[in-house]
Amino acid sequence: MKEQLRYGIVGSGALGCYYGAKLARAGGDVHFLMRSDLENVRRQGLTIRSRDGDFHLPQVNACGSPAEMGVCDVVLVCLKTTSNAALPALVAPLLDGETAVVTLQNGLGNEELLAAHFGARRVMGGLCFVCLNRTAPGVVEHFGHGALSVGEFKGPPQDRTMRLVTDFQRAGIDARAVQSLITERWRKLVWNIPFNGLGVAAGADVAQVLSDPALETAARRLMAEVITTAAAQGFAIRMDFIDQQIERSRSMGPYHSSSQVDHEAGREVEVEAIWGEPLRQARAAGAETPCLELLYALLRRMAAGERRS
Amino acid sequence: MKEQLRYGIVGSGALGCYYGAKLARAGGDVHFLMRSDLENVRRQGLTIRSRDGDFHLPQVNACGSPAEMGVCDVVLVCLKTTSNAALPALVAPLLDGETAVVTLQNGLGNEELLAAHFGARRVMGGLCFVCLNRTAPGVVEHFGHGALSVGEFKGPPQDRTMRLVTDFQRAGIDARAVQSLITERWRKLVWNIPFNGLGVAAGADVAQVLSDPALETAARRLMAEVITTAAAQGFAIRMDFIDQQIERSRSMGPYHSSSQVDHEAGREVEVEAIWGEPLRQARAAGAETPCLELLYALLRRMAAGERRS
Repeated sequence: MKEQLRYGIVGSGALGCYYGAKLARAGGDVHFLMRSDLENVRRQGLTIRSRDGDFHLPQVNACGSPAEMGVCDVVLVCLKTTSNAALPALVAPLLDGETAVVTLQNGLGNEELLAAHFGARRVMGGLCFVCLNRTAPGVVEHFGHGALSVGEFKGPPQDRTMRLVTDFQRAGIDARAVQSLITERWRKLVWNIPFNGLGVAAGADVAQVLSDPALETAARRLMAEVITTAAAQGFAIRMDFIDQQIERSRSMGPYHSSSQVDHEAGREVEVEAIWGEPLRQARAAGAETPCLELLYALLRRMAAGERRS
Repeated sequence: MKEQLRYGIVGSGALGCYYGAKLARAGGDVHFLMRSDLENVRRQGLTIRSRDGDFHLPQVNACGSPAEMGVCDVVLVCLKTTSNAALPALVAPLLDGETAVVTLQNGLGNEELLAAHFGARRVMGGLCFVCLNRTAPGVVEHFGHGALSVGEFKGPPQDRTMRLVTDFQRAGIDARAVQSLITERWRKLVWNIPFNGLGVAAGADVAQVLSDPALETAARRLMAEVITTAAAQGFAIRMDFIDQQIERSRSMGPYHSSSQVDHEAGREVEVEAIWGEPLRQARAAGAETPCLELLYALLRRMAAGERRS
């Protein structure tokens, strides 16, 4: 592999700008595909406001089209999954024979989409545990956390996996390689499906879910359904993970999940990636997921309302 | 039994005014317990606007307190269940040894509440299939239907049951006696729990539930849970009742359930009577009702928001 990797960030919202800016600050060769913020970032660069220390990059490589960006060694897909229909056309011009495509998106089905278009061999994924908000063009607020778990779509870590982890770690990101990316995705969904879902459907933050016995019961039931579905697919998660997740969540206080934040801001919620695709996989595997069915039905309907308004 | 029964209407909202006015128009001795509309009704009487023909009663017996109303032969309880805490004190002054107390309220638990306070022997109930709205003080709009199923809290119809049915029928109400009131309550809940619930939680009217495969699946699942719970209590409802209810609902078009109408108007939804009490009975009977659990958790949270606002 080359001494310096050329990174292309597709989807330069809060997530793409944050991780991309960290890589660029550490000397990485990073190119941002931008749309609405393009002119602004060309003039003013990128600003990250963070508890870990603010920083400003006066000049970054901001591109207005995939053609302008050109071929990259690593494409970091940071687009919201609600825009996935646009993804293949954005990624295709960035690839040569060796390019790795790494989706940092939420939920399930993103690796599969990329694999269907560009071959499974290229595809990697990452799980982001980070609280971010884009507060103005080219300005991202980092509220906390930031860990990144990186893995191969198929199989255990390879040399390229470790190379990415090294680049991320050099950039000050708490990165690690995971043995089974999809198992980790299911483990993350054990939390996201109930807490993001009830955040939107009930308008309840984490503390409110846990202070309402009926909502906590619903959250635990949803967690059990996710674990059952993962198991039906061959991804083992222990049932005592539920208690662990509930206890961990108690320390989060009145935390608003990204989906709740999206919903409250009138932005479209990532219904298909977080609930729809797991539900379809549950049905295909014959897993019984009645609560997930109901929650998905409600969220899909709310999302349709958001798209209409 | 006396030649003419003295009727007391407790809770003179749309329901109480509508059925009470029908009885009074037919010459019944009807007394309305009123609060906010009292002065207005004393001056202007009651007006019913209906597809079946408008009518106006220039003078009705409107009472400002139970003491003023005095002892009745039949108390028709038409209060919203969200005000049930006030019910015992409103009813007690209206009773002598023979008074029958007939709850026309929604959902489950209302007969039990009255029986706990006044003895099971007095208690009867009715299921109303009617679309009403109180549009101004003393003015009720009747949009359609109007059937009333009357039964004893415990056991099959008695002479008094038939006497009430006769009075109602003479007043032009499509009334009938039912063999098992509680079975009929469960049968009604097979419809109300999904359609009223999704009407509020998803903001979807009947046609919208049935045009969304995910919501229709959720509705059918909820219906099955209600039937399972009723069966666990010894009330048999056939599973093919689900298909019948779905087909019947298709002919309703964009119908908004009473709970959806309440919610959209910012009025408190009857969460405990329609979802909470059935769920508690399901838990007590050991019936598995995961979707009802989740729906109840969401509705309770929404209702709490309505009470706060």
